[in-house]
Amino acid sequence: MKKLINNPENVVREELEGIAAAHSDRVKVSLDPYYVMRADAPVAGKVAVVSGGGSGHEPMHGGFVGMGMLSAACPGEVFTSPTPDQILAATKAVSGGSGVLHIVKNYTGDILNFEMAADLAKEEGIEVEAVITNDDVAVQDSLYTAGRRGVGVTVLAEKICGAAAEAGRSLAEVADLCRRVNQQGRTMGVALTSCTVPAAGKPTFDLGEDEMEIGIGIHGEPGRERRKMGPADEIVELMAAAVTDDLPFRSGDSVLAFVNGMGGTPLLELYIVYRALDRFLKGKGIAIERNLIGSYITSLEMAGCSITLLRLDREMTQYWDAPVNTPGLRWGV
Amino acid sequence: MKKLINNPENVVREELEGIAAAHSDRVKVSLDPYYVMRADAPVAGKVAVVSGGGSGHEPMHGGFVGMGMLSAACPGEVFTSPTPDQILAATKAVSGGSGVLHIVKNYTGDILNFEMAADLAKEEGIEVEAVITNDDVAVQDSLYTAGRRGVGVTVLAEKICGAAAEAGRSLAEVADLCRRVNQQGRTMGVALTSCTVPAAGKPTFDLGEDEMEIGIGIHGEPGRERRKMGPADEIVELMAAAVTDDLPFRSGDSVLAFVNGMGGTPLLELYIVYRALDRFLKGKGIAIERNLIGSYITSLEMAGCSITLLRLDREMTQYWDAPVNTPGLRWGV
Repeated sequence: MKKLINNPENVVREELEGIAAAHSDRVKVSLDPYYVMRADAPVAGKVAVVSGGGSGHEPMHGGFVGMGMLSAACPGEVFTSPTPDQILAATKAVSGGSGVLHIVKNYTGDILNFEMAADLAKEEGIEVEAVITNDDVAVQDSLYTAGRRGVGVTVLAEKICGAAAEAGRSLAEVADLCRRVNQQGRTMGVALTSCTVPAAGKPTFDLGEDEMEIGIGIHGEPGRERRKMGPADEIVELMAAAVTDDLPFRSGDSVLAFVNGMGGTPLLELYIVYRALDRFLKGKGIAIERNLIGSYITSLEMAGCSITLLRLDREMTQYWDAPVNTPGLRWGV
Repeated sequence: MKKLINNPENVVREELEGIAAAHSDRVKVSLDPYYVMRADAPVAGKVAVVSGGGSGHEPMHGGFVGMGMLSAACPGEVFTSPTPDQILAATKAVSGGSGVLHIVKNYTGDILNFEMAADLAKEEGIEVEAVITNDDVAVQDSLYTAGRRGVGVTVLAEKICGAAAEAGRSLAEVADLCRRVNQQGRTMGVALTSCTVPAAGKPTFDLGEDEMEIGIGIHGEPGRERRKMGPADEIVELMAAAVTDDLPFRSGDSVLAFVNGMGGTPLLELYIVYRALDRFLKGKGIAIERNLIGSYITSLEMAGCSITLLRLDREMTQYWDAPVNTPGLRWGV
């Protein structure tokens, strides 16, 4: 294992100390328990949006804290759910009196711990709604998950719902919007290599020199099948067809197309993937109205990518375009 | 070699087609010869800023084309200089009548071809100034280079000079500023792994399971030494000391600290590097006034990072903060 780390046990703490040192203009970092919050939180009268999950997927979620996106993020250890006390502390710290939305990726541990934290927060008089993302079309049930896994759509939901909260929408409205984003979004991933969790010290799984895992999970969970490597255009068609067939996306739809790198894939390759996706969708009469290309929900240094499509409506597009000022995603400010 | 590509011979063309499909709101792409230009170029009366170099370093340079940064970028094949005809065509396409600045990384082929293009452009009545970046403190002379290599400071120079051009500064002023940025900036890199050029199909160099290359070049050129892997804090101290000793940076200096991923390094690790760098500089009385953390000048999927420090003055800071709207770097708009 070759990594730019000190002690495998301290990677999350030291990462958070790095974030605190780098971005004190925008975020505050709590080290006991771990969470990242907006520097100006709590914002009175605004719905707060909180997410979290295992570390190792950066910039998600800590890199998405700031104006127009998350109020707070709770990082667990690498590929490990955050604990209820982290989530409760973050929820209380950012609550501005108008309720808190929890955006939770569908992993059993995450759901349990967010639920427990929400119950405790409610006992303290904070209104909490939770929305579960489960956009991964690859498999039904999986290691760590009952049902479908929550993946790329989470990034889009955090941006869109963060903007809606910023615009003064109510908790019920922001939660409804979040559910709609999840319902209208679908994702599929592929891995060309495994990744190595620092505390484990060896690759999570083995993959042959000429193999890829179609439908990989973001923690290296098995997907649909292993195949021999092929040209990018074929891989993209396989993934994109799985995504479009599922909702299904139809001719005339307008979408946000999100081509996401898993952490070890060069941007050069992501543009080759985007080119193929653009051609595939044009062939189906589906219009890409917005896009996002880069490594936003990663699996440490895994090579591979995921494709997320979100069927846009006017409201989603408006909130997608709204200003955002986070370390990981920034425009309009 | 496992990559999300089709034919190794077509990676740059297909990447450019992907960029064209994704970012037509901001850039136009020429496929014959290859270059990326601002969608609104030429901008009358504004100095144009043109850069370029081998592909494989994305988002540099094509991802930095847009308002407030580059007017055009000329991508060569992977790790290969762009040709004079590309550079000439791009220079002519973006010339707005107030001169064109060429920002050229110090590699022998790049320098020759940019010089030839500048001579041809001058024959056609376009005023051209060239500034060479050579900020890599690792080695004097190298594979492909006489003198020092141009690396991380190029990204900062493109941002700062692009903003100065946007603000209406003259060619002489923008070129002077570019020279100053280069003079006040220093970089050092480390590689934990090699990378594979698609057309070669095998890693550029070999590195043992427990080794790193200190002072690596962005094409995998040898650095100062190979060492056993160590903790991130030690690696950062080694690199940061080489950078600060060189200029030298002194107590009381204000700097922009740029922690750059080489392509295969997770953001989690870059924040651990930033944490160590912040502590190192605090210990020397050097203040980080601005920072940039992410993968901006890459070497395909190489694991590793580089540290660039730029001694800031008021003018550089002002232009760093100015709005920029490119696919790779965006704020204020």
